Amino acid sequence: MQIQRRTAFAAGLAAVALPILGKGASAQTAAAAPAMPGSPGFYKFKVGSFTVTTVHDGSRAVPLTGFVRNAPIEDVQRVLAESFLPTDQLRIPFTVTVVEAGANLIVFDSGNGAQPGPSPVGLFMANFRAAGYDPARVTHVIVSHFHADHINGLIDAGGARTFPNAAIMVPETEWAWWMDEGNSGRTPENQRGNFANSARRFAPWRADVQRFADGAAILPGIRAHAAYGHTPGHTTFHIADGGDQMMLLVDVTNRPELLARRPDFHIVFDTDPVVAEASRRRAFDRVASDRIRVTGYHFPFPAQGYVAKEGNGYRFIPGDWSAGI
Amino acid sequence: MQIQRRTAFAAGLAAVALPILGKGASAQTAAAAPAMPGSPGFYKFKVGSFTVTTVHDGSRAVPLTGFVRNAPIEDVQRVLAESFLPTDQLRIPFTVTVVEAGANLIVFDSGNGAQPGPSPVGLFMANFRAAGYDPARVTHVIVSHFHADHINGLIDAGGARTFPNAAIMVPETEWAWWMDEGNSGRTPENQRGNFANSARRFAPWRADVQRFADGAAILPGIRAHAAYGHTPGHTTFHIADGGDQMMLLVDVTNRPELLARRPDFHIVFDTDPVVAEASRRRAFDRVASDRIRVTGYHFPFPAQGYVAKEGNGYRFIPGDWSAGI
Repeated sequence: MQIQRRTAFAAGLAAVALPILGKGASAQTAAAAPAMPGSPGFYKFKVGSFTVTTVHDGSRAVPLTGFVRNAPIEDVQRVLAESFLPTDQLRIPFTVTVVEAGANLIVFDSGNGAQPGPSPVGLFMANFRAAGYDPARVTHVIVSHFHADHINGLIDAGGARTFPNAAIMVPETEWAWWMDEGNSGRTPENQRGNFANSARRFAPWRADVQRFADGAAILPGIRAHAAYGHTPGHTTFHIADGGDQMMLLVDVTNRPELLARRPDFHIVFDTDPVVAEASRRRAFDRVASDRIRVTGYHFPFPAQGYVAKEGNGYRFIPGDWSAGI
Repeated sequence: MQIQRRTAFAAGLAAVALPILGKGASAQTAAAAPAMPGSPGFYKFKVGSFTVTTVHDGSRAVPLTGFVRNAPIEDVQRVLAESFLPTDQLRIPFTVTVVEAGANLIVFDSGNGAQPGPSPVGLFMANFRAAGYDPARVTHVIVSHFHADHINGLIDAGGARTFPNAAIMVPETEWAWWMDEGNSGRTPENQRGNFANSARRFAPWRADVQRFADGAAILPGIRAHAAYGHTPGHTTFHIADGGDQMMLLVDVTNRPELLARRPDFHIVFDTDPVVAEASRRRAFDRVASDRIRVTGYHFPFPAQGYVAKEGNGYRFIPGDWSAGI
């Protein structure tokens, strides 16, 4: 079926036709019909003169049991059900934000990267090309933090740089942590694989890595804002042009249907959940108070919208969709 | 710029690149850059073995003044602002629902149709083809009501049937009303153009029109449910297969950010706003109570999701997005 569906590539819609978790039965049914494209995974909007494109990398289901560490699973399920999401597992989407800012074409994080076989993730590069972009044109890759789903796409299946002509920029705090295996003992056990993985993914970039501090103006219109806790150096980004602005919230929240509604939930992927919660509340407060448009790496595609204060938590409100840019 | 952007057609992304209202300035800026595709306007999901595709036809801005007839504009603006929508105008999106049900390929309503020049609407046919569909393959066109944005796409620029091999099915109450100009005096003045327009759009179909009653099983898995008031015969549709179900709410609500939050708002496009409100509340109550997935013609793309009871009104909650079908 994989090969048959690949004929959709000819229509320029690429890997968006790959089957996604929980849809196996449907995909089997469809196999008898002519190959049909899946839903295209890119969305474009403007921030001032900048063009922002959210590029979908797929979704992956993780067990719900144990995902939130400080609440009974029934509480978690109730919150998911309020947003009409499945309650037997957590489907986590991945969406990379791309910004064209003047002559710069900037990719924030790199997705899950090329997969060895059929996979519900690793769709970034096909969707990026479908959006009209050439990886060779990328001028900068800016990395938020070194979890695998954010850095695995830095290299291709052969180990070469995915964006051959790009500079790479990383938070200095994040770099210092994961490039020193001496921090292993102070790192939660389920995160220790990040040391070796970071070394591997940055290998071909290593000599050229540029490190930036919290608050740094990284590039014209782009500023780093520390939001530590998810990882030791996890960083968000503020984008501004011509009086317009947005925030890349990255992983201050996993699915907002869960962690915006309940910012007090501590999730299994946080290196320091208490610090992560404080960072999450600070980021939500800012974007809610100032009504700043946001994107989020694990937001439902197209992963752009707004955050409103509501009750003891927040609510993610998708931005209005428009075909034009 | 129009011509330059049309080069995006070559990439199979067609008219989705047309500039949309309120984006003129951005589009001008982009004109100097290489042609880029806009955001693709189709989304696919399954209902049992059926494949449902929402196909975007564009959006159009209408004046906010006078849109809601029984509330001060400040109330309307406050509701829009809660959803981070513009408050100086109302942007109304148009999205056609397409259902592949066994051997049947069914299009519900037809969009705004071919436009004489650059337009923010009329994107349906390009997006329908991008979704992998051929209009000649359509077996049935089912019409919900005879407002221009739902029937103008029934014929092409030359006046011929847009779906040459399709049967056409309409609510008998709707047909009886608009095919008899004798009803003109009992029709709000701003709706009277629908008599002549309906005659024109149905002209090449007229001999073959099949009329259905409220509650009729129109096709396997597809049933009509009257929701009068928006027009005299406005009809919603229930789709069911293999224990799965959905409702096409069509125009029981214009933008749900407005009329789900405030079902008591009476809008300028309703022929009988009091009856429309009762139909709206009945439809919302059903889909909220039974947690039935819905699509809506004026919902934010991809125009599929759920309705939850909240306070004195309801809230539209977009369905989770997935690249696979």
